[in-house]
Amino acid sequence: MITSLSVGEADLALVTDLYQLTMAAAYHAAAEESGEMPGATFELWVRRLPPHRRFLVFAGLEQVLASLRDLSFTYEQIDYLRRQEPFRGVADSFFETLSDFRFRGDVRAMPEGTLFFPDEPVLAVSGTLLEAQIVETLLLSIVNFQTTIASKAARLRLAAGDDVQIAEFGSRRAHGPQAAVWAARAAYVGGADSTSNVLAGQRAGVPVVGTMAHSFIMSYEHEEDAFRRYQRTFPEHTVLLVDTYDTLEGVRKALADGGPFRGVRLDSGDLEELSRQTRRLLDEAGRQDATIFASGDMNEHKIAALRAAGAPIDAFGVGTRLATSADAPYLNGIYKLVEVVRGGEVRPTFKASTGKATYPGPKQVIRRLEQGVGGPTLAGDLLIRHGDEAGYGAEQRLLVPVMEGGRLLAGVEAPAAAQPGVGTADDGGLATYGVAAGRRRCLRQLAHLPPALRCLEDGDEPAYAVAVDPRLEALLQGQLDRMAGS
Amino acid sequence: MITSLSVGEADLALVTDLYQLTMAAAYHAAAEESGEMPGATFELWVRRLPPHRRFLVFAGLEQVLASLRDLSFTYEQIDYLRRQEPFRGVADSFFETLSDFRFRGDVRAMPEGTLFFPDEPVLAVSGTLLEAQIVETLLLSIVNFQTTIASKAARLRLAAGDDVQIAEFGSRRAHGPQAAVWAARAAYVGGADSTSNVLAGQRAGVPVVGTMAHSFIMSYEHEEDAFRRYQRTFPEHTVLLVDTYDTLEGVRKALADGGPFRGVRLDSGDLEELSRQTRRLLDEAGRQDATIFASGDMNEHKIAALRAAGAPIDAFGVGTRLATSADAPYLNGIYKLVEVVRGGEVRPTFKASTGKATYPGPKQVIRRLEQGVGGPTLAGDLLIRHGDEAGYGAEQRLLVPVMEGGRLLAGVEAPAAAQPGVGTADDGGLATYGVAAGRRRCLRQLAHLPPALRCLEDGDEPAYAVAVDPRLEALLQGQLDRMAGS
Repeated sequence: MITSLSVGEADLALVTDLYQLTMAAAYHAAAEESGEMPGATFELWVRRLPPHRRFLVFAGLEQVLASLRDLSFTYEQIDYLRRQEPFRGVADSFFETLSDFRFRGDVRAMPEGTLFFPDEPVLAVSGTLLEAQIVETLLLSIVNFQTTIASKAARLRLAAGDDVQIAEFGSRRAHGPQAAVWAARAAYVGGADSTSNVLAGQRAGVPVVGTMAHSFIMSYEHEEDAFRRYQRTFPEHTVLLVDTYDTLEGVRKALADGGPFRGVRLDSGDLEELSRQTRRLLDEAGRQDATIFASGDMNEHKIAALRAAGAPIDAFGVGTRLATSADAPYLNGIYKLVEVVRGGEVRPTFKASTGKATYPGPKQVIRRLEQGVGGPTLAGDLLIRHGDEAGYGAEQRLLVPVMEGGRLLAGVEAPAAAQPGVGTADDGGLATYGVAAGRRRCLRQLAHLPPALRCLEDGDEPAYAVAVDPRLEALLQGQLDRMAGS
Repeated sequence: MITSLSVGEADLALVTDLYQLTMAAAYHAAAEESGEMPGATFELWVRRLPPHRRFLVFAGLEQVLASLRDLSFTYEQIDYLRRQEPFRGVADSFFETLSDFRFRGDVRAMPEGTLFFPDEPVLAVSGTLLEAQIVETLLLSIVNFQTTIASKAARLRLAAGDDVQIAEFGSRRAHGPQAAVWAARAAYVGGADSTSNVLAGQRAGVPVVGTMAHSFIMSYEHEEDAFRRYQRTFPEHTVLLVDTYDTLEGVRKALADGGPFRGVRLDSGDLEELSRQTRRLLDEAGRQDATIFASGDMNEHKIAALRAAGAPIDAFGVGTRLATSADAPYLNGIYKLVEVVRGGEVRPTFKASTGKATYPGPKQVIRRLEQGVGGPTLAGDLLIRHGDEAGYGAEQRLLVPVMEGGRLLAGVEAPAAAQPGVGTADDGGLATYGVAAGRRRCLRQLAHLPPALRCLEDGDEPAYAVAVDPRLEALLQGQLDRMAGS
């Protein structure tokens, strides 16, 4: 028996930390005795920006919702759990609960592609304590990863500007074949134009592109033979990789041959100089229409430098640095209990630990735009209690309902439709999730970034203000007083 | 329609870069004309060590072999490809070839858990040019990721020593829910003792452990009530998380209550000081048997420092830094064409580019052990042509056949069996892949590391010698001369 470790829909219930399930068993045992399973709300947010980041791009909501919709335990999974040492004394009724489990809670979320900042919940899950708890690992692993990659892609987008293409090329360096697919999706939400990953095209609708590899050239004794073969197979779509032996010689061979090609790819060397010389050769041959594609250890700084130098490059392929977000390869997103409802009493919860303090209770994020010279600009966010929204317009509220009683809200399944309550007015009624709507939202919001947040260099923490509403501060103070008095 | 992006076995054929499939179409078209599909060998290796690494641990072979065995194209996948713009002019016979595709090539590989170094192939794939080419992205994404994580885990193992447990706890920060599972597997191969990821237990046989989360404590008004509930549900397996409010107060509550617990977990604060005071409280209460589990932003340097200071910690939970290999989050493993067979002529291939030069032809790696004071020690490797093995004992050859004609070699499906030709004598006949055999091999080889390679600090490039056999150098020179003459 060899283990393929493909992870499909039916496996998701066990893609969790063991303690989620032991805690669930303890919650269940308590409820059996008291006759009541408490209600709970958890929120997902980050405490600090990762290094080198001035904002984050929320991504992965679609997979969160699909996972919540599909989550269930198979007979084999329950059988496996029963045989694990800690579960041996646990009552049968707990495993019956798992076997009937469906997520029936409520979810509020920021729409995909929304720019966000520390302390702002991007996702709020309300339901029974058991159901809201056991999805923690799954939700964090989806959101942390896709948000990490989308946020990196947005930096590449800022570096490249609007008229240069960015293709995600990092599948071979992603964290496994499956992460490659999600990385491609998240990169697209964050502003990349395409991916080389075919499954991301078939399943998630990301545009797929490709050129050719050195091995293709090397499989022929003469470079020209390899070029000719590719051109004959793909007369309208050939992008010739010209750097296997001598880059400019490769360009000359491509031109001399007279075969059709759409463009050339440079994958090594001094890309500024080589792209200029390549452009000159192409132009002299009357191939003003041929494009120059550049790749090879690309990142946002190299792209910004090549753009600033005026290198005539039409598209960048970015692999490793994008698919692994190599300079900030993880996000410390956390999923914290903010409210428990037990015996009719609603108790906001929070952590008082130094440096890890949190605000109690379910929250909402309010965003203010200012009219600037170049259009609207992000002017500051406000963290308020959920329930205090009334004073703010729907277009200012970042968290919107996306699931109620375990059902996707009407309208959110139609990504192209403008539905009241899904998407904010700022997004022109775009759907709350999905790659196309998420990407459009992200690009629109990137255009709203103030200059300090557009900057790609490290430096002082940007002065983007996330203020806290006095009513929320009062709630925290009340809870602190209560704790001190108890 | 919402996209769940679960990636199962049947999806693997499209988890690839588009150009693998366009190149395949070009190879196919050429073969249709010439009447011959060339043969090829590709090898997978790294050019340089990642930052902060002095050796690497090969992992993922089991998933490589399972993927090669299972790889096929479904009707829907072929239909998707046919509708993609570049494929519109491609002959039907190519899609018929895909629809009949099974991998029928040969694979040689290092056994899982083998320590290796730059320039050493860990995997060699021989077959038709088409079949050996299209698996590139899949194989690289498996090996690059699992090797990255196993190599990080080995550093944690070196830091912790042999008598302290390491649990992988990073599922929530891994690159998606699926990477979480593979990270857990690879961490175990590299020397971790367990994981919190339940699916890694069910599917790959990794031991699964867990404690409890802050949210469990916070869901009760009083810490003691939370402790008591857990103890009643898991009387024999409770590890109490004691740091939610005040760590030592938490330990006192655990002891005062009199309820059963196996140990306590410290997740914040000065772990050296807190572990000493916790140990003292436990010992004073006669609980010498109770264990101390420490977690919270752990890495190999913190573990080494706590061990050096004599902190009485029995087990470490390592999350983010392990599951993402945060200080070196990717491996630049490459998969390069080293030989083409066309028209009966065998042509070794290589890349001559400056800084990216490679040795032509299929290779073998020979390892020498020296008898040191503390036992055998790695004394240097030798890169030779595959076929020049005769002068070396089987126990010195690192690459062994694992697949022939698309079939797993007899014996390698039985992980516990010692089979001639699978595993090296150094490994006592352990199977070539699988978590249990891989982990034992890795631990054995870690014990063979010379001091310079055991060091966890950055510094001069370690002086581990990978020499090149004169016959291989001569082959390279011959190819260079031939190129210069052509």
